[in-house]
Amino acid sequence: MRDATQTRAERTIERCRELARISDVPGETTRLFLSEATLDAHALLLEWMTSAGLETRTDDMGNVRGTRRGTSANGPALLLFSHIDTVPNAGAFDGPLGVLLALTVIEELAAKPLPFDIELIAFSEEEGVRFSFPFLSSLAVTAQLTPEHLAKQDAAGISVKQALQSFGLHPERIAETCALPARTFAALEIHIEQGPVLEAENMSLAVVESIVGQSRFLLTFTGHANHAGTTPMALRKDALAAAAQWIAEVERYALDSKQLVATVGHVEVLPGAANVVPGLVRAALDIRHPSDASRHAATAVLLTKAEAAGELRGVRVKAEMKMQQNAVPMDHALTTQLADAAERAGFPVNAMFSGAGHDAMILAPHVPTTMLFLRSPGGLSHHPDEAVREQDVEAAIATVLEFVTGLRPPQ
Amino acid sequence: MRDATQTRAERTIERCRELARISDVPGETTRLFLSEATLDAHALLLEWMTSAGLETRTDDMGNVRGTRRGTSANGPALLLFSHIDTVPNAGAFDGPLGVLLALTVIEELAAKPLPFDIELIAFSEEEGVRFSFPFLSSLAVTAQLTPEHLAKQDAAGISVKQALQSFGLHPERIAETCALPARTFAALEIHIEQGPVLEAENMSLAVVESIVGQSRFLLTFTGHANHAGTTPMALRKDALAAAAQWIAEVERYALDSKQLVATVGHVEVLPGAANVVPGLVRAALDIRHPSDASRHAATAVLLTKAEAAGELRGVRVKAEMKMQQNAVPMDHALTTQLADAAERAGFPVNAMFSGAGHDAMILAPHVPTTMLFLRSPGGLSHHPDEAVREQDVEAAIATVLEFVTGLRPPQ
Repeated sequence: MRDATQTRAERTIERCRELARISDVPGETTRLFLSEATLDAHALLLEWMTSAGLETRTDDMGNVRGTRRGTSANGPALLLFSHIDTVPNAGAFDGPLGVLLALTVIEELAAKPLPFDIELIAFSEEEGVRFSFPFLSSLAVTAQLTPEHLAKQDAAGISVKQALQSFGLHPERIAETCALPARTFAALEIHIEQGPVLEAENMSLAVVESIVGQSRFLLTFTGHANHAGTTPMALRKDALAAAAQWIAEVERYALDSKQLVATVGHVEVLPGAANVVPGLVRAALDIRHPSDASRHAATAVLLTKAEAAGELRGVRVKAEMKMQQNAVPMDHALTTQLADAAERAGFPVNAMFSGAGHDAMILAPHVPTTMLFLRSPGGLSHHPDEAVREQDVEAAIATVLEFVTGLRPPQ
Repeated sequence: MRDATQTRAERTIERCRELARISDVPGETTRLFLSEATLDAHALLLEWMTSAGLETRTDDMGNVRGTRRGTSANGPALLLFSHIDTVPNAGAFDGPLGVLLALTVIEELAAKPLPFDIELIAFSEEEGVRFSFPFLSSLAVTAQLTPEHLAKQDAAGISVKQALQSFGLHPERIAETCALPARTFAALEIHIEQGPVLEAENMSLAVVESIVGQSRFLLTFTGHANHAGTTPMALRKDALAAAAQWIAEVERYALDSKQLVATVGHVEVLPGAANVVPGLVRAALDIRHPSDASRHAATAVLLTKAEAAGELRGVRVKAEMKMQQNAVPMDHALTTQLADAAERAGFPVNAMFSGAGHDAMILAPHVPTTMLFLRSPGGLSHHPDEAVREQDVEAAIATVLEFVTGLRPPQ
């Protein structure tokens, strides 16, 4: 029942909160891929989509899809998308906001004729929690899902394929039911920033010009464990002292390098006793930069610094690459159109890069894609206190409306 | 059966190896306080002591004691001591060497008349493994054992008192049977160095002038956990970066400070994920110095450095003192006599401090006490590969013989 006094931004936020109450774990928001709660979330979303006049369906990867028809049959199509799975104990906005804000935009379009279809996609799997692997559903719609993906197992030993079947889906029909509309000409993901940049800049929105590339390494510092009382400082091979010097250097180097973020987020110290000089340290390094060349250069510098910190102390350093992913640029023309739309709507934006991965990164090589970010109060995400400001949601609705109505599909 | 071709040093080492085969855990050397294997170890040791002509007994703390009588009844007494309990998966020499080397010295004295008794004490509990508390047996002989000590429980919930009773001892008689000889005028502990100093100096032996004081702190660095991709470097409160800078500074400061050792041996990083900026770090700091004033000064400097490293990053730092123990000087006159004896025996020594705790530290406030260290090959101890060199054992035997025969008890 729509409350006539409610603004469109309030309505959007309220729907996010309502969806967030549907959870695998009572009292919090945890909605993993193909979980039981997801069935209820789908029912609610399908109801909203249907009320908004969309033709709805669920594809065989569990993506909920709704189409608003344009003026010509089999015409070009614009995608609006985000995801509705969550991390454990999540907030209400990471994912769902993009879906429900797009739904509001479609409602606001009312009967306005447009020369293209709009397909709204609520992706079923982005966070990668259940199968320790992200983006499964955007891989499916871009025909990149492999038998290996379908064989991945969750903690209970259930495969993706089995989970799809238990959910009432037909994995053998994924290629057929998941494909994007044949004449998709543009795609837009709306998402909270999940970082503090917009808040620091006092801006509501940003357009995303690229999603950063990322490398992840596991470094092992091997020194020699010794008695902390009887081993003079000069005779030690302290693996932690070497790692510590390096961790401080990683921070320093990244602070001094534009657009680089470098993080040591995990450290393990062995034997790990207060009275033993550490003999072994394992440390995870995560490096991200919008330029792949800059990321590679930074990687070379930081791994060399690790070796140097080790060498000073007779500590051996080994670095294993655990992951590497190139930067994914958003479509330049489309991103410019989105920025122009924001300006016309009265909310001028800066372009920024996304330090986190998104489904947009999977779609971009296949379809001209762009992203709109909304300010994250406190930079918070993946947390129950994750929030959005009503004024920013209104800015995003106005911007996307302007963007959609201004789009001219190729002839 | 004594092998006539065997040197006294070889015999001493062989006995250590033989004792090391008596273990709570087959295939390694693990002999905890009052364990079943300890009964067998006592039997073997009592047999050796008896064969050497000592009057033997086991006191009610489980210490094995043997007395060589001097020329006058109720005369003054010299103590020779170390311990025979071990850490898990220990070597053969940490503790037992001191007992068995002293036994060899007594054997070498043969019938030589001396104007004092010699009591050889094999302490039952020094390592503190079973009851997570060290020095219980030297506390008993110095009348410092309290009901709280006797109530301490092992991992199975057995108290010290119960363990003593199960071993066939009478805890209520500890004061009576454990007391040191009334006219004890000197005490000597012989022990492996457990560090690399003598090896680095290419020396067999050292006399110990003091046992270092020690402070232990737990530091907590509280920053803010953030997404490693979306949080620019300048907007982070990285608890690990603060801790890392500080750990490197601890090393630097101790390297530049004479006789100071400072160790961060344990670090815990939370949440500890590769893609999350660490929000909380706990780190253990262990500081030791032969001078209490220097240790306190170093502590103040290092805790200030931690606060400064935190302040740079908006990271709060809290330091809790977990342990503090003052330095214990050995008896100066006795230590000089021991050094002189080494020189007369042909093995000039330097004085050093002990970075580890020893029973000598418990006895020193009650009886003039000193310590002799033997070189630890590779600085190794608390490890199955722990070793001693035969030449060093011979040097120690010759030195202690010279020391004992040169001692003049007070009239």
